[in-house]
Amino acid sequence: MGTQLLPIDFWFSLASTYTYLSVTRMADVVQRTGAEIRWRPFNVRSIMIEQNNIPFRTKPVKLAYMWRDLERRAALHGVPYAGAPPYPLRDVTLSDRAAMIAAREGWCPTYMPAIYRRWFIGQRDVSDEPDIATALIEVGQDPARVLTMAKMESAEQALVEATDTAKRLGVFGSPTFVAGPEVFWGDDRLEQAIDWSRGSGRY
Amino acid sequence: MGTQLLPIDFWFSLASTYTYLSVTRMADVVQRTGAEIRWRPFNVRSIMIEQNNIPFRTKPVKLAYMWRDLERRAALHGVPYAGAPPYPLRDVTLSDRAAMIAAREGWCPTYMPAIYRRWFIGQRDVSDEPDIATALIEVGQDPARVLTMAKMESAEQALVEATDTAKRLGVFGSPTFVAGPEVFWGDDRLEQAIDWSRGSGRY
Repeated sequence: MGTQLLPIDFWFSLASTYTYLSVTRMADVVQRTGAEIRWRPFNVRSIMIEQNNIPFRTKPVKLAYMWRDLERRAALHGVPYAGAPPYPLRDVTLSDRAAMIAAREGWCPTYMPAIYRRWFIGQRDVSDEPDIATALIEVGQDPARVLTMAKMESAEQALVEATDTAKRLGVFGSPTFVAGPEVFWGDDRLEQAIDWSRGSGRY
Repeated sequence: MGTQLLPIDFWFSLASTYTYLSVTRMADVVQRTGAEIRWRPFNVRSIMIEQNNIPFRTKPVKLAYMWRDLERRAALHGVPYAGAPPYPLRDVTLSDRAAMIAAREGWCPTYMPAIYRRWFIGQRDVSDEPDIATALIEVGQDPARVLTMAKMESAEQALVEATDTAKRLGVFGSPTFVAGPEVFWGDDRLEQAIDWSRGSGRY
């Protein structure tokens, strides 16, 4: 690949906690590094259920650790943190579908931080329409238009297809960064993925 | 704590793959940072079984990812890697007990890299006496003396007590770095733990 810059597919799902860090700091990261990020929503829950991968729900010690670790990583990156938000989210179906519309139209970079801010800083379970609508308005989108599209069967179909693609690439968690053949899982691998995408031969 | 340097308890168990990175690069890290590292062997398997935490054995996609991630992290740190070694190890009982003797006598910094090298580079399942003995000889220890002590009931007792202590601190995986009240899990948190141990107020 020489010194060509590879685009990075940023696979994400609102169900994930650590993804808060990635979506919130992505604008800064892009500005600093010039990385080309392609926002790719998918349904991480369906893959995790299929693979019997339950990282926190049944593991209270690991769950408590995760919140503290996330808080420290947030401090490291200058990302606001207001304590553990409602978790897990009750239902991410509509949220995932709205993210599919955002990805198609190119406004994930503003919408995803907004919906995550409402979850993490607003401390709201953002499963339902009013919360999603508020985040949409915040980023200049018409909630009636977007939610109508999000409720169409085609949005669900697009989400299923995206999730199949993610699974084929070996994605099993969120956030995941894919550059060429390389899969990097976790917010703490973002910089490593960018180094790789530069074709530097370094990870 | 002001600018006082906190010691770091390095909780580890030979059952763990990523711990290969920590034990192998620890000497360099200590030289570079001046961190005070206390080597603390424990039985990570018993805690993981108790907490129903099975990260890889039943998860082939995640397991394949782990090896590739470990390989890239090894390259990043200049740690040798020779492909996935035998995994999981058949029985770490004797190895864990030998590590308890090493910790008591202060030669973990040479022995742990040696036994891990035999596993990862020698590609041997290091469960049994001959492999442990070879690693002991390599670091100037008398295998007869160490293995006799390792087989004593008191070594098992010390391991059980260490594991109870780890569990009380909230340790659930290996490697874990504990500085004061802060628990950092994973080789990729070692530098963060050291920053914290310096009382810098940064993670």
